[in-house]
Amino acid sequence: MGHPFEARVGANESAFGVSPVAAIAMRKAVDQLAWYSDPENFDLRSALATHHGVRPEEIAISAGIDDLLGLAVRAFVEPGQIAVASLGAYPTFIYHVNGFGCGLSSAPYRDGRNDLEALADLAQHPDVRLVYLSNPDNPTGTWHKASEIRQLIQALPKHCVFILDEAYTEFAPDDATPDIHPIHPRTMRMRTFSKAHGMAGARVGYAICPAAIASGFDKIRLHFGVNRIAQVGAAASLTHTAFVSDVVKQVETGRDAYVSLAADLGLLTLPSATNFVTFDAGSAERADAILERLIENRVFVRKPRVEPLDRYFRVTVGRKDERGVFAERLREIVKGT
Amino acid sequence: MGHPFEARVGANESAFGVSPVAAIAMRKAVDQLAWYSDPENFDLRSALATHHGVRPEEIAISAGIDDLLGLAVRAFVEPGQIAVASLGAYPTFIYHVNGFGCGLSSAPYRDGRNDLEALADLAQHPDVRLVYLSNPDNPTGTWHKASEIRQLIQALPKHCVFILDEAYTEFAPDDATPDIHPIHPRTMRMRTFSKAHGMAGARVGYAICPAAIASGFDKIRLHFGVNRIAQVGAAASLTHTAFVSDVVKQVETGRDAYVSLAADLGLLTLPSATNFVTFDAGSAERADAILERLIENRVFVRKPRVEPLDRYFRVTVGRKDERGVFAERLREIVKGT
Repeated sequence: MGHPFEARVGANESAFGVSPVAAIAMRKAVDQLAWYSDPENFDLRSALATHHGVRPEEIAISAGIDDLLGLAVRAFVEPGQIAVASLGAYPTFIYHVNGFGCGLSSAPYRDGRNDLEALADLAQHPDVRLVYLSNPDNPTGTWHKASEIRQLIQALPKHCVFILDEAYTEFAPDDATPDIHPIHPRTMRMRTFSKAHGMAGARVGYAICPAAIASGFDKIRLHFGVNRIAQVGAAASLTHTAFVSDVVKQVETGRDAYVSLAADLGLLTLPSATNFVTFDAGSAERADAILERLIENRVFVRKPRVEPLDRYFRVTVGRKDERGVFAERLREIVKGT
Repeated sequence: MGHPFEARVGANESAFGVSPVAAIAMRKAVDQLAWYSDPENFDLRSALATHHGVRPEEIAISAGIDDLLGLAVRAFVEPGQIAVASLGAYPTFIYHVNGFGCGLSSAPYRDGRNDLEALADLAQHPDVRLVYLSNPDNPTGTWHKASEIRQLIQALPKHCVFILDEAYTEFAPDDATPDIHPIHPRTMRMRTFSKAHGMAGARVGYAICPAAIASGFDKIRLHFGVNRIAQVGAAASLTHTAFVSDVVKQVETGRDAYVSLAADLGLLTLPSATNFVTFDAGSAERADAILERLIENRVFVRKPRVEPLDRYFRVTVGRKDERGVFAERLREIVKGT
């Protein structure tokens, strides 16, 4: 529209930037950019293995969770076989399922949450090979407890692989994250440097998974696929735990502010374990109208399009100034709608 | 082996680093790394379109030629159909052909060059969908003239897509590179920032191709697949033409020095239009022995393994100091073999 957004609070990027330790390491890594990156991701894989208390063979690194989702669909679902996900789940997973010519079986959200029982029921179909769940969830921000996730895993047929997308796990309460140990023989836990670590532009994600799955990915992945600067930056960011804790704290503060704002304006919100808050506009029409007016007013926000999620709009926790701009604009708009 | 190499002249990386203009732009881009990269690669695509005098729709950008090769195999060759390449051609192309379960039909090299007639003959098989050629060639460094490439294109069946991998094109004589115009309806010209631009660790490559092929790739590629710093760096490097010209000149000097060295030692070399020189050891056994001794002596070099290329070893043009180390070690070794 010919003008920049004043608050970029639509893509759940981190408003709190990259760790200064990682930034220094990455600026230095520019000097070695003429060299290919390490195809084994050895340093980063070792660091992640130590961080999570697993073996390096149980870490699969790739250019973001998006890349890992593509590899998983390609590896586990033949054309004609089926993947299961919630209706309105992370679009890139669905994109890969369609792109590889696989079938998709979907259960609608219930009360703003993934319906784990419905997903488990769908997975009983003999052609299902892959089940996807994000927890905490994107696009709603809601979450299930670790015990419920474990129950879902138990309920899946033995020939199904389960993807637990934990992109937002740093922002979640402790009991939303199942223990890493023991690594379940058919589960891939996917993590990213794009959210709490503030490195969305770098493209680094990883899976904690059985060694057999990681070595299977080695047969189809792009071996030099992770940018050299990104490898260095991710490893450096992993050491800067104080930075990540501070980001998480700032996000909690911002989430609380959004919840208060919503209450002030008579809007409901969904509970959030992520770096964004989902506002309930009461109806799809009103949510569309609010979204449109926010974007006209230079606030970049997004909303889900499928029922029953279409009554919501989703706002990333921005910096304090961005939250101020958003709050001011939302107040004006809600008064008028 | 517990010690670093003294001369890293095995992977055809640039010994002359990244453009200082690009380096400054990339260090600055670290500050915006919390934001996703532009999924459309708009700025870089526009800059490349202007650079080549084509439309932005005729540029497909991805995370290196490796990534583009995977997309091409996936897009154009069904399992059971066939791709054609020289025996010993760029291994990543073969990797994707195997990875997607496609067939491969290969013609051996002849006198250290791709055998274009044999490739055209193989392409006549009704199941062939994709033909791959690197020109200038990797792993030999040899090249064919533009007129010969055009003849090959004319000889291919109408249902075949042709990949012309021009990763080393900046180092080649002018008559090795067919005109970009008109863009042939079934040809993808692949280019990279990994070689002359010294950005192998960044992962940026592109194809100049019909708009229909580029938009087809948009349906299967990773939309956020190119690192944000890499996007910025590639666009900046493209403006720094004096840097690239200087790299090309230094590579020419180094190539000449390798050729003189070989002549001094009674070894033949293949003519090279790349940033490396292929030495002819006379037999596979002697080439293996020389390679082994070079690596023991801290010089990282590679060699092809398939006949008739296995009598060669391949040395990247390093910086002057690296060339000195290599020359000294090679002299000692050749005397002893």
